[in-house]
Amino acid sequence: MSHVRIFAMGGLGEIGKNMYCVEYEDEILIIDSGVKFPENEMFGIDLVIPDISYLVENQHKIKAMLLTHGHEDHIGAIPYVLRQIKMPIYGGRLTLGLVKSKLEEHRLQHEAQLLPINEDTVLNFDRLQVTFFRTNHSIPDSYGIVVHTPEGMVVHTGDFKLDMTPVGSPTEFGKIAKIGMGDVLALLSDSTNSERPGFTMSERAVGEGIMDIVAKARGRIILATFASNVHRLQQVVDAAKEHNRKVAVIGRSMEKVFMIGQELGYIQMPEGMLIDIKQIDNYADNQILIICTGSQGEPMAALTRIASGSHRTVQIYPEDTVIISASPIPGNTVNVSRTIDKLYRAGANVVHGSLFEIHASGHGSSEELKLMLSMIRPRYFIPIHGEYRMLKMHAKMAEQVGIKSENIFVMDNGDVLCCNRESAWLEKVNAGLVLIDGSGIGDVGNIVLRDRKHLAEDGLMVVVVSIDMKNFKILTGPDIVSRGFVYVRGSESLIQEATVLVRQKLASALDKKIKEWTELKSQINEVLKPFIYERTGRNPMILTILMEV
Amino acid sequence: MSHVRIFAMGGLGEIGKNMYCVEYEDEILIIDSGVKFPENEMFGIDLVIPDISYLVENQHKIKAMLLTHGHEDHIGAIPYVLRQIKMPIYGGRLTLGLVKSKLEEHRLQHEAQLLPINEDTVLNFDRLQVTFFRTNHSIPDSYGIVVHTPEGMVVHTGDFKLDMTPVGSPTEFGKIAKIGMGDVLALLSDSTNSERPGFTMSERAVGEGIMDIVAKARGRIILATFASNVHRLQQVVDAAKEHNRKVAVIGRSMEKVFMIGQELGYIQMPEGMLIDIKQIDNYADNQILIICTGSQGEPMAALTRIASGSHRTVQIYPEDTVIISASPIPGNTVNVSRTIDKLYRAGANVVHGSLFEIHASGHGSSEELKLMLSMIRPRYFIPIHGEYRMLKMHAKMAEQVGIKSENIFVMDNGDVLCCNRESAWLEKVNAGLVLIDGSGIGDVGNIVLRDRKHLAEDGLMVVVVSIDMKNFKILTGPDIVSRGFVYVRGSESLIQEATVLVRQKLASALDKKIKEWTELKSQINEVLKPFIYERTGRNPMILTILMEV
Repeated sequence: MSHVRIFAMGGLGEIGKNMYCVEYEDEILIIDSGVKFPENEMFGIDLVIPDISYLVENQHKIKAMLLTHGHEDHIGAIPYVLRQIKMPIYGGRLTLGLVKSKLEEHRLQHEAQLLPINEDTVLNFDRLQVTFFRTNHSIPDSYGIVVHTPEGMVVHTGDFKLDMTPVGSPTEFGKIAKIGMGDVLALLSDSTNSERPGFTMSERAVGEGIMDIVAKARGRIILATFASNVHRLQQVVDAAKEHNRKVAVIGRSMEKVFMIGQELGYIQMPEGMLIDIKQIDNYADNQILIICTGSQGEPMAALTRIASGSHRTVQIYPEDTVIISASPIPGNTVNVSRTIDKLYRAGANVVHGSLFEIHASGHGSSEELKLMLSMIRPRYFIPIHGEYRMLKMHAKMAEQVGIKSENIFVMDNGDVLCCNRESAWLEKVNAGLVLIDGSGIGDVGNIVLRDRKHLAEDGLMVVVVSIDMKNFKILTGPDIVSRGFVYVRGSESLIQEATVLVRQKLASALDKKIKEWTELKSQINEVLKPFIYERTGRNPMILTILMEV
Repeated sequence: MSHVRIFAMGGLGEIGKNMYCVEYEDEILIIDSGVKFPENEMFGIDLVIPDISYLVENQHKIKAMLLTHGHEDHIGAIPYVLRQIKMPIYGGRLTLGLVKSKLEEHRLQHEAQLLPINEDTVLNFDRLQVTFFRTNHSIPDSYGIVVHTPEGMVVHTGDFKLDMTPVGSPTEFGKIAKIGMGDVLALLSDSTNSERPGFTMSERAVGEGIMDIVAKARGRIILATFASNVHRLQQVVDAAKEHNRKVAVIGRSMEKVFMIGQELGYIQMPEGMLIDIKQIDNYADNQILIICTGSQGEPMAALTRIASGSHRTVQIYPEDTVIISASPIPGNTVNVSRTIDKLYRAGANVVHGSLFEIHASGHGSSEELKLMLSMIRPRYFIPIHGEYRMLKMHAKMAEQVGIKSENIFVMDNGDVLCCNRESAWLEKVNAGLVLIDGSGIGDVGNIVLRDRKHLAEDGLMVVVVSIDMKNFKILTGPDIVSRGFVYVRGSESLIQEATVLVRQKLASALDKKIKEWTELKSQINEVLKPFIYERTGRNPMILTILMEV
């Protein structure tokens, strides 16, 4: 029976690595390809991307990748996907600008076909057609996507808020409502803020909040925010202009966005207002506003370095006002607090937190989510872009606005909603995660992570012995070396006793003519592990290397 | 010139390891001895305690330890301190009950002299006298402490909120105000919630919030909270009683508090209401309320295990209501969210977060802090118990209520405020932190932690070679073993190439008759490190072991 298949390679039950697919017969459209930042226990991992083996197997069906907006959790995995699957990529101008710069970093700029869209674009594939509608989010050029199928429309909101007084182009309410008057098969909608009541604060209010603080500040102003929040940057530039301050920019990603943003006309400022960071001392303190990265307390970012006194050009002066125009993402709270403490210690006045109207989320709260549901009025609803409880909460709202509970699907990555006008059922495809560490893609898995965790918690003892296996005799050693276990100074006797224990055990095993190395190693382990635990309460990894000479 | 010395061994610029001292001539009184939980980058560390070397050197002066209340960040370091310094310990009955149980765990119960106090107790030392006043906090038996010195009173608030409708005994407002009418030299006051506006919600309101949820629940109720919040536990018990539910308790610390709390009369419940967890299936679901640990998503706690389906007696049923009566401490947010997600997936209805009145902080907000300052009216003010920005904010409030800025001291651990009625100045004593890992106290320091971090992020390669140094010849090896670096499967060729490289380099060094081992090792490192980085983008720890045979 003819039906549409809707599934996610990433983005369900998590915040990050968003990648949604709409499949109809022999056509697949991919919506976004994002990364996720590693969880705490993913020691040493740089990034997490979706496992796209299903898409690689079905790449003959893939027609295009459509991008909703330019955030890392929506475009970050593109270089990795493009290495395996060639396809055209459609997105807004700013989105493509950011993708292009990312591809250049990966030296893939010549592999990709980047095609700009706007709210009027219509893309015709074989049986599928795609149209777009403008939304508001914490980055310009955010779009909702409509995939027109023979079974009706599949609507993907992208990340959105329904900001009535946005800084950039407004949400196309009329177009959205009109879509809802048509034949909508399914809606996929952003669940990030489904746990928040009410409406999300307008970006415009943030501009006013920042303007107030800039008006009052007597010394320099240092403002940290997300580099990609171009509307925010424009509002900061406007405040600086109003109060006759020059703007200097620090932090690699911030400099990049300022370049792309100005080039594409998203950031507008008078000639000569943007100055090089090295020139700031040529101006009075109250003529300077510095925009920088580090609003999440990231260890290497500009604000963090400034706070620690380790930035090469900017130090904190006692009259400085530091504005942190962002909320800490869960998991970053401790790092942000630490940065704030250091700024205070350096003498700055720090403006942060929800007491001041200096940050607004880019995601709609409950009432906005209900409004979207009420306008689109889909047959089937899939809450996307959220951890499980957020999806669940969004599903509850869908019921409240009148969608039948049997038509609401709280899904996991890899679950496939197969649906048409008559019925809907679930199937499964392969989905999972791929860890990126350095230049390695997927060569770190559970065993490596388990070892890293063990090493992190208890460190390591290496036992090396060379043995004459013909005569069952120890030649040299055991030598015991430790790392991350105990201070070497003060632990000499512990190591010495351990060495004696291991030597005795090994000698007696060799006397019994035991020659299997696994057996010899496990005998060493059996005597060493309890000895170390009893003496230190720790279980270091024990690595025994036997050498036959 | 005769003066009082006030300083902290821990608790300033941090939340945790509270330990404050008041010194006058040859007398020292210690207030509290707490632990701190390790920060993220303190790999493998179990606890952090204050470095008390100054107190050990001056132990002949130490008259007593006074305890404000029984939380871990105020009593957790007592076993470690007692091993080095003998002194009597004074505290409320519940506080001492918890200390006693802690000392038993450390087999130190016979080392300590535990002396109960109440609000009427007067302790007379040589020149110093100590009195107490009742406060409210998230544990019963919380006291403020007044040290009467020849230079006036030093007042320490302990952790407090000014709850007008508390569950236990009320704050002694009259006594506090009377202290303020006297000769107060200095105030040390709790800064935890100095960033919060207004008044903290009353514990009584939490009881009502919980009662409402218990009234509506149809299935079982599972409630997680801090074990030490005995007032909260009593209110939960009251709600269970009102709605005819039996109470079962799980989690080691929760069981301990229920035992101590009932024994001392702090938790009151009818005979037969408390049942063993193994009996819960003998009752209907709506007759059961389970109280458990794990409100912070701690990996090994009861609620976390229940959520993961790995608890040995309790599984989630679809009609269960889970109440998390706590706020996540910064740093625990991610773990708590993960637990909530798992509970939802298991089918429970989860009640958590600030939308419901099911938790109140135990620390007073700005208006309460200002009220305390206004009542005590000290000559000198030291904000305590808080990270730097909280101390700073509290200092600002002190100025607002009329304390001269030159009389406000935002100090660090080890800073000593020397003061008398005429003047005040700062000196320093030694202060710092001691890391506890397993049974080791202070044997893990920066080098060990740096190695653990390195191992955690990039893993390890061990290179072992045995060499005949007489003939400058490699005998066996190099053998290369790795852990936490790459999957062994699929990386065979990488390791093989590395082995060849090392062998060549070493052979050529030996040909040149190089015999210094550090030189040989560094030559191996020089060739191996860049090769590995180029091929993997990683920098594993390289541990080279040369054996002379």
